Amino acid sequence: MKNLTLALDAMGGDHGPYITVPAAVQALKSHPNLHFILVGDKTEINRYLSAHTEDFLHRIEIVHTTEVVAMNDRPIHALRFKKNSSMRLALELVKDGRAQACVSAGNTGALMAMSKVILKTLPGIDRPALVSCLPAVTGEPVYLLDLGANVACDSETLFQFAVMGSVLCEAIHQKAHPKVALLNVGIEENKGNGQVQEAGQILQHTDQINYVGFVEGDELYTGKVDVIVCDGFVGNITLKTSEGIAKLLVHQLKTGLKDGFVVRLLSKLIAPRIQNVLSKMNPDHYNGASLIGLRGIVVKSHGNADEAAFLQAINLAATEAKRRLPEMINDRLESILLDINS
Amino acid sequence: MKNLTLALDAMGGDHGPYITVPAAVQALKSHPNLHFILVGDKTEINRYLSAHTEDFLHRIEIVHTTEVVAMNDRPIHALRFKKNSSMRLALELVKDGRAQACVSAGNTGALMAMSKVILKTLPGIDRPALVSCLPAVTGEPVYLLDLGANVACDSETLFQFAVMGSVLCEAIHQKAHPKVALLNVGIEENKGNGQVQEAGQILQHTDQINYVGFVEGDELYTGKVDVIVCDGFVGNITLKTSEGIAKLLVHQLKTGLKDGFVVRLLSKLIAPRIQNVLSKMNPDHYNGASLIGLRGIVVKSHGNADEAAFLQAINLAATEAKRRLPEMINDRLESILLDINS
Repeated sequence: MKNLTLALDAMGGDHGPYITVPAAVQALKSHPNLHFILVGDKTEINRYLSAHTEDFLHRIEIVHTTEVVAMNDRPIHALRFKKNSSMRLALELVKDGRAQACVSAGNTGALMAMSKVILKTLPGIDRPALVSCLPAVTGEPVYLLDLGANVACDSETLFQFAVMGSVLCEAIHQKAHPKVALLNVGIEENKGNGQVQEAGQILQHTDQINYVGFVEGDELYTGKVDVIVCDGFVGNITLKTSEGIAKLLVHQLKTGLKDGFVVRLLSKLIAPRIQNVLSKMNPDHYNGASLIGLRGIVVKSHGNADEAAFLQAINLAATEAKRRLPEMINDRLESILLDINS
Repeated sequence: MKNLTLALDAMGGDHGPYITVPAAVQALKSHPNLHFILVGDKTEINRYLSAHTEDFLHRIEIVHTTEVVAMNDRPIHALRFKKNSSMRLALELVKDGRAQACVSAGNTGALMAMSKVILKTLPGIDRPALVSCLPAVTGEPVYLLDLGANVACDSETLFQFAVMGSVLCEAIHQKAHPKVALLNVGIEENKGNGQVQEAGQILQHTDQINYVGFVEGDELYTGKVDVIVCDGFVGNITLKTSEGIAKLLVHQLKTGLKDGFVVRLLSKLIAPRIQNVLSKMNPDHYNGASLIGLRGIVVKSHGNADEAAFLQAINLAATEAKRRLPEMINDRLESILLDINS
């Protein structure tokens, strides 16, 4: 593996360097050719570095800044007034070619807005999309996009998302001809709104994409398809609903299992098993949403990710960088557009 | 209780009279003033009637027809060519005042289209909405609408849904000043698409509705609010996603709990408890979606509802009829519109 440099927004997320710095050190331990540029408050960062072995320090560079994007900053505000923030400087390192990818657990809206302005979208892509993996019954990941970068999408945008999702699944999961579907309120061709129906028409005539039609919400977790496309309004609500129902089930299991002595005893013995199953539903287990369609790699971690979860986001960014995801998406899109116009 | 007559689409659903007729007989047993008009194939209906006690036969009338709306009939096809279908005749009984409500487990799209054409919407209501209850952590029901009657909604329609949902919650759940929220991708005022933001503005200025703002998908099952409003595209996918994730959890629990002797033994002992908890998540347990905003009462049962679930749909229709739901919605809407215009 060639040398790889990742830019980390060390101050982003609920816990900042307390989580991001130890996660970076963990990553350095397992990847001998990995380097980090940690962007943020030098004093803060060093506090969490000194606690670790010094063997890896030569692969860490610090870019000092004290400005941070707050979790509740409006994207437009962050864009205008946080030009020296750790988030922005990390993205600029990618733009300048000093880092091959950026990882941040900071404000999602600000990260999306800044990424689009600083890195720009690929030719032929109107808007970047936020994409993540869901855990399916089959154990295979299912890629869902968009997760909230775009609250309204026309058919062309949905089509672009389908292409990007397909390439991402091929690149990261190394699956040939991933099955791509549009999320809809029914599987029949006449179902849904105009955007979804039109996007379906375009995809049906795109030979290079393995488009399999519409799927309904209950197919999100069956693993029947590999990539599911929807607008960001639907995607965000779908993902949050899933988190909500998982929490409800945990609650109901706990309540349902606590009454009666024998049952209480059994519950205690079996609780770790149930917790283990439910932890697989924990979004932090599948941490790292990719912002794709840009001329650079940006991975968004959950704001409240712990060290292990943030490490997953780092690993995802490293994999995307190794596989040169933006170039792959660009090549595929060019080839598809040539195909359509020929 | 005054006499109450319900019109049943006896042929609707996956099982037709095999389920609908015994459920009707069950309802007659517990409601002495209830009457049924069963619409469908007389021979088929009588087959399932004869098996039951004859004590209730004087409260059952049969309207014979052999035409049925198929589960895969397109709404427009059903509307044009199924004028003697059990579904349509049942709705016409409500229109003619011979029944106070209609219950059907048939094709949802056809039922919505026919209801709108035959019963018409209330003054001030552009489109009927499909609404159902979700089971929340608190044990209180949460009303979610629209569930798929309208794939695209403007702000005015979302506002009307909010009013109807609020009145429904008051009428059926007898809760004063139910908390009403709009489903969105964030809770801040600037979040979401234009329709949702505008609807929020209108609702903020509507004193008679206890509007509490936006909620995200993970609040669907917390019980923090009583009524959640969204368009039918989002509502349908949200509901189906919930079903999907519940199925995934059952699958993962079963897989996770089956290995190891002690664990297997414990699982066997505790399995009924877990099943009991999960059955509460079963949509059939919360069976019966109301089609509201019409000049008559229509309750839609799941197509694959069993006898107990179909009985729930019947009970819901009876409650709505007793409380005169369409008149309540009409009165409230009139009062709100007067308020706004004054």
